[in-house]
Amino acid sequence: MLTVFGTIALDTIRTPFKTETMILGGAATFASISSSIFTRTSIVGVIGSDFPLEYKKMLDDRLDTRGVISKSDGKTFHYDSSFDYDLSHRKSNKTELNVIADFEPTIPKDYSHSEYVYLANNDPIQNMKILKYFSNPKLTICDTIEYWILNKPNDVIKMMSQVDGVVINDEEARLLCKTSNLVKCAKIITSFGPRFAIIKKGEHGSVFFIDDMIFPAPAYPMEEVIDPTGAGDSFAGGFIGYISQKNDVSISTMKQAVVYGNVMGAFSVEDFGIRRLIDITRKDVDARYEKYRSIVHY
Amino acid sequence: MLTVFGTIALDTIRTPFKTETMILGGAATFASISSSIFTRTSIVGVIGSDFPLEYKKMLDDRLDTRGVISKSDGKTFHYDSSFDYDLSHRKSNKTELNVIADFEPTIPKDYSHSEYVYLANNDPIQNMKILKYFSNPKLTICDTIEYWILNKPNDVIKMMSQVDGVVINDEEARLLCKTSNLVKCAKIITSFGPRFAIIKKGEHGSVFFIDDMIFPAPAYPMEEVIDPTGAGDSFAGGFIGYISQKNDVSISTMKQAVVYGNVMGAFSVEDFGIRRLIDITRKDVDARYEKYRSIVHY
Repeated sequence: MLTVFGTIALDTIRTPFKTETMILGGAATFASISSSIFTRTSIVGVIGSDFPLEYKKMLDDRLDTRGVISKSDGKTFHYDSSFDYDLSHRKSNKTELNVIADFEPTIPKDYSHSEYVYLANNDPIQNMKILKYFSNPKLTICDTIEYWILNKPNDVIKMMSQVDGVVINDEEARLLCKTSNLVKCAKIITSFGPRFAIIKKGEHGSVFFIDDMIFPAPAYPMEEVIDPTGAGDSFAGGFIGYISQKNDVSISTMKQAVVYGNVMGAFSVEDFGIRRLIDITRKDVDARYEKYRSIVHY
Repeated sequence: MLTVFGTIALDTIRTPFKTETMILGGAATFASISSSIFTRTSIVGVIGSDFPLEYKKMLDDRLDTRGVISKSDGKTFHYDSSFDYDLSHRKSNKTELNVIADFEPTIPKDYSHSEYVYLANNDPIQNMKILKYFSNPKLTICDTIEYWILNKPNDVIKMMSQVDGVVINDEEARLLCKTSNLVKCAKIITSFGPRFAIIKKGEHGSVFFIDDMIFPAPAYPMEEVIDPTGAGDSFAGGFIGYISQKNDVSISTMKQAVVYGNVMGAFSVEDFGIRRLIDITRKDVDARYEKYRSIVHY
């Protein structure tokens, strides 16, 4: 069983080509929809009274949503951002924490037996609190973002010391580790405690660092990108979803999981929000996984 | 036989950690020293009266230098640049064309039978002139840089139409093709005429586009980079050097050659200028090639 904890959001996404207002987003949403293609996924998070019923139904249809708390006296987390012409740089316009600001996370009792836990972007203190609810997880992973690195760097490091693996963007890894070299970044991150680190590099793919091994995995080549939002979360969901389904934390499974993560990230950017992710089947994912293998093989 | 044409330079390289003044550099130098590890390489270029004897000897020891013209009435091309703290951004301080400004390229008669020709960074008009000297080459490749794209864009495109393959940096591909998407860039470049394009992405490796195939090859992971100068030229030299040695232009050989190119680029950044390249043997290169294969395999 896999439990994903993190933000469930209403996103406003502005690209030079189109703007989408208040669409379903958030790190936990992308990660859990992505992982649900591989394995039964439980989601933990909080939404407000403005959360559209149709979005709640989308989550209910695919996930165990007993961990989603609905606050009648608040609004859902809202994130408003704009992409530049080449869709590679995002500017934050507005971040309204709303119901997540003072959320005291808890989980349904059944979830405490989850073997696999993904702490998507969230306050590291909340992440550490929720981690305590799991009785004996096989694999715990966290992500973080610039906001927490800048505002709670010590808690970010403490959180990383309590998980098995860290998944993080290249820019955020550099910010956290104060070096531009990603091999050094990974050594610093694993020195905090986790056994492995995965650095996500967007269009350049991802690099998996474990023990003394490095596995660089190029991105699945994409000619059309519509909306990069959630690609990293979809990666993480695909990664832990595949591992959870195989119920195997060997390095060879984790390497395959990195490729599945890349594949899920590539699907996610093909439309706004989660639209593409809810449109695809495991068969589509496996076909792209095989295509990926054939292009990187030499 | 492989002939490399392009700049032979005296470089001043400033990193936050060290400055090296008037050391041996230039696109043709890096490419030919790199290719010479795989195959006998002839170099065509021009130097001035200030070119140090010891550097001439370095070239003579490894290359057929009958194509190097020494101008007694001029100074060698000099390029002065600075890198920022993370060695990923270069700023040009001074570019003194000197003897290359009005160079009328020619080649020793023996070179005209070269099956393999690499036109390293140079004026596209000079590149097209020299290309005519080769009677029946099996594989011709060119590179170009921002300067020529900005100043002679039509000649750059015309030059690309006359070669079999283009090797180019990601930033320059984007500049030339007016799109940030590298898959689109490659389609545009090959629409000019060459059968294939290789886009070099520095620390993110390279992507080889041929016919309808894409081969993304991550960079060899490097924890220490001393001087990124010449990495792309070393890549190109390794690529065409390996193909020339195998005397085979099949796609599978070219894919292996891309990996050899990545390996040569990785060696080149381990010291200033060509120091690391002249220090290594084919055995070192093959060992790193095998290491590369083992890390990307899954």
